[in-house]
This record gives sequence, structure tokens and C-alpha cells, in this order.
Amino acid sequence: MEYNGNVMKNSANQSEQPSLERFFNTVNAYQQTAVIKGAIELDLFTAIAEGNTTVEALAAKCNASERGMRIICDYLTVWGFLIKTNETYGLTQDSALFLSRLSPAYAGSTIEFLLSPMIMDSFKDIAASVRTGGTVVSQEGTVSHENPVWSRFARAMLPIQIMPAQMIANLVQVEPDRPIKLLDLAAGHGIFGISFAQRYPNLEVVASDWAPVLDVARENAQKFGVSDRYKTLPGSAFEIDFGKGYDIILLTNFLHHFDQETIIKLLVKIHGALQTNGRAITLDFIPDEDRISPPTAAAFSMMMLASTPGGDAYTFTEYEQMFRQAGFSRSELHSLTPSPQRMIISYG
Amino acid sequence: MEYNGNVMKNSANQSEQPSLERFFNTVNAYQQTAVIKGAIELDLFTAIAEGNTTVEALAAKCNASERGMRIICDYLTVWGFLIKTNETYGLTQDSALFLSRLSPAYAGSTIEFLLSPMIMDSFKDIAASVRTGGTVVSQEGTVSHENPVWSRFARAMLPIQIMPAQMIANLVQVEPDRPIKLLDLAAGHGIFGISFAQRYPNLEVVASDWAPVLDVARENAQKFGVSDRYKTLPGSAFEIDFGKGYDIILLTNFLHHFDQETIIKLLVKIHGALQTNGRAITLDFIPDEDRISPPTAAAFSMMMLASTPGGDAYTFTEYEQMFRQAGFSRSELHSLTPSPQRMIISYG
Repeated sequence: MEYNGNVMKNSANQSEQPSLERFFNTVNAYQQTAVIKGAIELDLFTAIAEGNTTVEALAAKCNASERGMRIICDYLTVWGFLIKTNETYGLTQDSALFLSRLSPAYAGSTIEFLLSPMIMDSFKDIAASVRTGGTVVSQEGTVSHENPVWSRFARAMLPIQIMPAQMIANLVQVEPDRPIKLLDLAAGHGIFGISFAQRYPNLEVVASDWAPVLDVARENAQKFGVSDRYKTLPGSAFEIDFGKGYDIILLTNFLHHFDQETIIKLLVKIHGALQTNGRAITLDFIPDEDRISPPTAAAFSMMMLASTPGGDAYTFTEYEQMFRQAGFSRSELHSLTPSPQRMIISYG
Repeated sequence: MEYNGNVMKNSANQSEQPSLERFFNTVNAYQQTAVIKGAIELDLFTAIAEGNTTVEALAAKCNASERGMRIICDYLTVWGFLIKTNETYGLTQDSALFLSRLSPAYAGSTIEFLLSPMIMDSFKDIAASVRTGGTVVSQEGTVSHENPVWSRFARAMLPIQIMPAQMIANLVQVEPDRPIKLLDLAAGHGIFGISFAQRYPNLEVVASDWAPVLDVARENAQKFGVSDRYKTLPGSAFEIDFGKGYDIILLTNFLHHFDQETIIKLLVKIHGALQTNGRAITLDFIPDEDRISPPTAAAFSMMMLASTPGGDAYTFTEYEQMFRQAGFSRSELHSLTPSPQRMIISYG
């Protein structure tokens, strides 16, 4: 057993005495999911932010039992979401910023997508996915035609993608003195294209996704004040006609859903839709060549095994080769720290 | 983002830059449960222990796809269960000891209980449990009459309780020169009483539990060579007649299921069944008075909230008071490091 403050610690140090702790923490990890979900449903973090810091006050505010409230607050303290001082509970810096609805960076809504039945069901039989090499939920998993999970995605995931979207719009400079055409493929909530339109007044966005998802993107374009330079193109990226002459084509959290052959076919189509000197911008979970680091990017391949027929967390070398095979001249890898995702700029 | 070797680290340090990592790791924690379950079902750790260390060899041995095998091995490396060197995978010290069937300390079978539907279903709606202050699965949860989950428990949990059982039998010394009578309440697999019988040839065990569970305990008494000094007493500890004159009564992983009033009533009955100078031995998850440390013991209260009407992870002060109210003269707390559980000896 090894304790770091009051937080269970996964240590990679193998020279310690034998311990079942990592195994039991991992077997019981589903309980952490259940408890953080429960805490967000109870709006517990907001209640603390509003000044309810005792079990009694929190139970009253959240319409809960004192016994249940005491147990969940202690559990959340053990796992590093709260701080307990004598008999009162306070928010950590991260909980105050991301889990209280009083904060503009509130990210609690992301559980609507991350813990949607479609996604969670993908993990019901991992042994079967390892045996077959892909999702066992259905033939196509989350990438089936007009899968409604993507409307959930668009509504739930917006808050946490505003920051990376602004980082990308700043990093990918465009000429200020001529009209710029940007195609946002699998646009989802639309924030990536929208951030470019906000940053560059001479830029026009064409957003593509399933029709019900584009409703969300259009709402957001309105909300962020760029709807006059925002067009939509509904349908499958593999089937629709993109048009021609784009300066930028955005591929955010999209390519990882597919096998390499499918990706190359799509990249050929994308290359054809770019104007000379056009750029494709890929945002994705891109692990190092060892495929075990950084951890969040590396572990993402399991999500693709569980939920798609052939998707993966591809390395930069793999992406670079796919883009080259599709006709792109070169690709550059960019860090987006503190985001666990990385960006590739590929030149047409 | 903070990386410690190749393991995601839960840091309690709140002075770092804001990060969503802890939140997302916790929301997605159910995936860790699913993957370790899948790895045990595939018997992946045994396959590596047998010398299959490449994706190709492991896929062949486990009858799986190479793509699936590569992804699960990388994921298990990220989470500290495997070591990856170039393109080969090796076991960590703990994985070799506890997760390979070649090891006598194999603990993979514990998922049959820990991930049984009865236990996992308890965590389906934690917000509701916090609201009502107890399990919402059924009126009595896991403590209902002859709940079959306890036969699963008895079969699955034996391997990991042999070591603490031997520690307790060594710590609780008995006189060597007269017959000793031990009552093992909620005996389960029976290993606690059995370890006393193995250690002290003058000791006789009466094991009590639901009748189907006692079948498992009797099998184990046979296997460990003490069946000639092993009797069984089927039924509810709250209803059956224990008999009289016990030197030792074992309460292992039992009291935590109940509310304090129920426990005190039971302890009165136990006190009456002990001879003068008899001892009650409690093994349980007993957190410090702050209820947030040590983490495993503190977090256990959530398991009781989710799966029982009134159970808890009680502190030593609470146990000491309950035993005193039931007529015991004094109680002593003992550590069982490296086990996360602790032992209380209460004198009649």
C-alpha cells in the first residue's frame, strides 16, 4: 500500500512489496465513474461553490440524506475532487473551475456524451472486441449512418473544446487580405470552424456533418456571431461533393474512427478539394511511436477498438504516410499542451 | 497534464495549472474495469507468463486478433499492468504474482464476485442512493435472506484472504493446553476459522452462514485438512442459536453490512455466547477518525451505501462504543499491513 496525501496512487515502481491495490482499484474503477456521475447529477460541486460546506447544509441543498451525503463527500475527497477540513468540505481548484455550474468552464455536461449508453455499451465485452479486432456492439459501431450519438456529442462536448479550438485558430495563420474558404468536416458542435471565423473576418466556413448535428453547429454559429459566414453541407464525408478551392480543411476528432485504407481514400478526396497551397488540419489523439505515451493519447486506441470496426489512435508516422500516399507534400506535428490532443498541418 | 513514467498520475497537488485529466480519467474509469476483466477472461497474463511476449504470439495463444491484442497490451501497459520493451510485453512483479494462473497467489477469480451483476448493479444510480441514504437495488440489497451472491463470494474470494487469515490466527494467540471453541460467523469460504484450526490442534470450529455457502466452507475444511474439527450451523446470525462457551467468535467482513443499532443487538447476542475471558475478533475496513484515510478503507463506505440499507465503514471509535454498549470490557485495534483491512480484538 502506498499513499500520496489522501489520494490512491498508481505507482510504476516495481521494486516495492507485492500489492493487490492496483488490481482492485482497476477492477472497482467503474465505481468511480458511477460516483462522479452521481455527484454531477446531484449538482454537489455547485452546492459547495454556493457556500454549503457541511453534510447537513449539502443534504438540504441537494435534497439528499445526510448519511448518503457524508459518504459521497468522503469518497470524492479520497479521490481528489474535494478537500475535507475538520467536518467541512471545499472544492479543489479543478473542481471549482470545471465541475461547478457557477464557473464558465463547467464541463459536467460532457458526461451526457461520455457516459451515453452507446459509448458505455461498447465496453460491455472487451474480450470479444480483442478476439474479433473491432466493435461488437453492431457492425459499424458509432460510425454507422446518422448515429444519434453525434448529436449528443455536439451538445455535450462544446465547453471543453473552446480552448483547443481557439489555440488552433491562432496557430494556423491565414492571409488577411483575400477571401479564405474553410471546410469543417464532421463539424459536430462546429466550434473549430467557428473559432476560425471569429479570428479571421475574411474567412467563410462550410460545415459538414449529419443533418441533425448541423442544427447544433448552426445554433452555435449564431451564438458566436458568425452565422453570416457559415454554410452547411449535410451528409456523409465519404459520399457528398465537397466542392473545390478550399484553403483549409479541418479534420478534428474524425480520422481516428476509420482504418488506414478508408482514411487514405478520404484524404485523396480532401486533397482534390484543396486549392494549391491549401492545408488539411488534423486534431486527434496521436501517441508517440512507442504507442504507450502520452497515456491519454495512447489509451484512446481502446475506445476505437471498442466502438468502431477499424479505428485507432494513429502515430504521427502513420498519419504522415497516409497523407503522403494521398498526395500531400508534407505534414508537421504540433503540441497543444495542456490538451492531450495534438495537431497535424498537412500541405496540399 | 502530468505524467509519471507511463502511468497516469492522480496528483493531490492543487498548485498546478488547471487540468481536466482527473475528471476524464474518473468519468472513463469504467473502461479500466472492462479492460482488466477482458484481459483476465482472455487469460492474457498467463499467456505472457508462458513466454508469449509478442502481439503475434499472444494473438495466436489467446485466439484473438493481432489488432485487438496490440491495443489491449498497450492499454494495460499505460495502466501499469504490463511492461513494453521495444515490441515485446512483459509482466510486472504484481501481474506475475497475482494475475497469472501459473502463480499460486492468482487472484483473477475475484472478479467473479467483485464484478458480479448483484454488486455492479448497486452502482447504477448513486445519486438515488445518496438521496435515500441506502441501496436502491432492493429493500435489503446484498444482505437479503440467502442472497446467492455470498456463494459467489465464498468461491471467488478465498485466494486473497489466505494471507490475512494466517496473520490473524498468528496474532490471536490461544492457550495450547485445553480445548478451544471458535465460532466463525458469516464464515463464507471458511478460511478464517480454518486457519485457526490449522494453527491450533486443540481448537474446534463452528462455522455459520447460509446453508449453500457452508457447502463451500466444508469443502475448504476438507481441502485444508481440518474437517474432523469443523462443524457447521446454517442460518441467519440474527436468528440461530449460537450455543454457549465460545473462546473466540470471528466477525470477518460482516459487521459493515449493518446499521449501528442492528450491530449492537448482534454484539449482545455474541457477548452472551462467549465464555468468561472470551474474545470477539473483527476484521473489517476501518478508516481513521477523519473518514478519508487510508483511502481503501475510507472509500469502502460507498460500497455499503450502494449495496446495503444501512451498512458503513465504521471507525475504531464507533466500533469500540458499539462493543462497550453490548457488554464488552475493552477493544484493541491492530494493523494487518499490507492488507488494507484492520482487526479489532474485543474482550468479553
